[in-house]
Amino acid sequence: MHVNIAAAEAAITAARKRAAELGTKMCIAVVDSGADLKAFYRMDDAWVGSIDIAIKKAKTAVFFGMPTGEIGKLSQPGGPLFGIEHSNDGLITFPGGLPIVDEDGVLVGAIGVSGSSVENDHAVAQAGVAVVGVSDLPAHPWRT
Amino acid sequence: MHVNIAAAEAAITAARKRAAELGTKMCIAVVDSGADLKAFYRMDDAWVGSIDIAIKKAKTAVFFGMPTGEIGKLSQPGGPLFGIEHSNDGLITFPGGLPIVDEDGVLVGAIGVSGSSVENDHAVAQAGVAVVGVSDLPAHPWRT
Amino acid sequence: MHVNIAAAEAAITAARKRAAELGTKMCIAVVDSGADLKAFYRMDDAWVGSIDIAIKKAKTAVFFGMPTGEIGKLSQPGGPLFGIEHSNDGLITFPGGLPIVDEDGVLVGAIGVSGSSVENDHAVAQAGVAVVGVSDLPAHPWRT
Amino acid sequence: MHVNIAAAEAAITAARKRAAELGTKMCIAVVDSGADLKAFYRMDDAWVGSIDIAIKKAKTAVFFGMPTGEIGKLSQPGGPLFGIEHSNDGLITFPGGLPIVDEDGVLVGAIGVSGSSVENDHAVAQAGVAVVGVSDLPAHPWRT
Repeated sequence: MHVNIAAAEAAITAARKRAAELGTKMCIAVVDSGADLKAFYRMDDAWVGSIDIAIKKAKTAVFFGMPTGEIGKLSQPGGPLFGIEHSNDGLITFPGGLPIVDEDGVLVGAIGVSGSSVENDHAVAQAGVAVVGVSDLPAHPWRT
Repeated sequence: MHVNIAAAEAAITAARKRAAELGTKMCIAVVDSGADLKAFYRMDDAWVGSIDIAIKKAKTAVFFGMPTGEIGKLSQPGGPLFGIEHSNDGLITFPGGLPIVDEDGVLVGAIGVSGSSVENDHAVAQAGVAVVGVSDLPAHPWRT
Repeated sequence: MHVNIAAAEAAITAARKRAAELGTKMCIAVVDSGADLKAFYRMDDAWVGSIDIAIKKAKTAVFFGMPTGEIGKLSQPGGPLFGIEHSNDGLITFPGGLPIVDEDGVLVGAIGVSGSSVENDHAVAQAGVAVVGVSDLPAHPWRT
Repeated sequence: MHVNIAAAEAAITAARKRAAELGTKMCIAVVDSGADLKAFYRMDDAWVGSIDIAIKKAKTAVFFGMPTGEIGKLSQPGGPLFGIEHSNDGLITFPGGLPIVDEDGVLVGAIGVSGSSVENDHAVAQAGVAVVGVSDLPAHPWRT
């Protein structure tokens, strides 16, 4: 199942509101369960370099059904997933990407946010997910 | 100068309206004058393959400050720009990408549309540009 | 909705059977509705160059919800989609890729076959689709 | 020499069985001694991001004729192969990729598994290799 455009827009609107409250300039991306771009929004004066990071965070979150920061904990030097970011045309493994899971526990997409500190990026992503679902997947089964 | 997000959103909204009138399912991208993605919108049930085409059409239109279809006329076998689509990580040179030029004749960005016939793609792109500027650049000078 | 692995395996088994009947050595790929690889099978002595072609045919068919050969008719020099193969990291636009559409008219994936003449590639792809669905999409709506 | 499709299928079948016993959802890839994809299988609900990782693990294992985890020990910061993952369009250097060596000590291919912890990925890869060969190469000579 894929996130629909109404949900993607609602998530971006909520994320923008949170970004404005925090006084940040963000790039916000939503991808579907196939990691294909559904919607994207770059606030005026957001970093140009955040375009790709926001999209890659969203893709990374849906690729592995978990927050990007969780992957980053495992991919440090000496960690079990060191170097994983070389896969899938480049992952971003610090916070700011979150899965979007629907009421049936199905992974339907993900949101990725970039443009400020990773704490702010994560908070803005959370605000986006909160209006359309949750970020916690059941262990299994879940459908893609 | 770059298109701002308010103009990008207005262009996408107008383009969506026209797409709905035509009964089509479109991907719509807006890039700024640096060819960097500003906003993107994929209607439900639009072709997944149109994501990249819409973005590449917008980039192509701003790369050369002209409608994508104009470049396509020059890039046919035997034409002066044959093979130009191999540049810039891939161009799309058929209709559906249009520059966005502001009231001072400055190129501020471009819109790219993909998801139906090239005639429909072009019509939807035109509807988007119409609410925020024009597509005709003065010969020179114009600023990026 | 995505094709499941049982359907992907059934399609490949049927395609292999047809390939053997034709005395050909094929690469056969199945992707889901997000154009992500689900299953792949290379018969002994199939061309190594057909690996990428089979996968790209499957992706192309799902990207645009139509047989790859239909796109090829439109992408010739002078045609409306000339150069479309430069999108999406490379398309293959000759026959051998077919969408997989389920009983509800939903595009769930695609099959791509490469290794012989385009007529044989197409025939083998058809044999694969026949056991799990059809290749004809309703005009709209269909869901991805 | 290259692994044949019968062996590739046998390896995948054994790997799937082990994956099911472990309650995991895996992507499983087999490549030949030229590092070209022979067969691929994605279990329902496996991570989409594991497609590329499974394939890259298999390629990495055959590129250097050793388990991927062995390379990872050498590619840490300060290690002799630091950064090797930038070669060959991207390596994956944590466990889950194993060479397939035949009874004559010849490297005939490799298997790559991704979708769970690296311990589970490695165990599933081992189950696949066990039915078609071993993973230990003689020092030299061995043929490709």
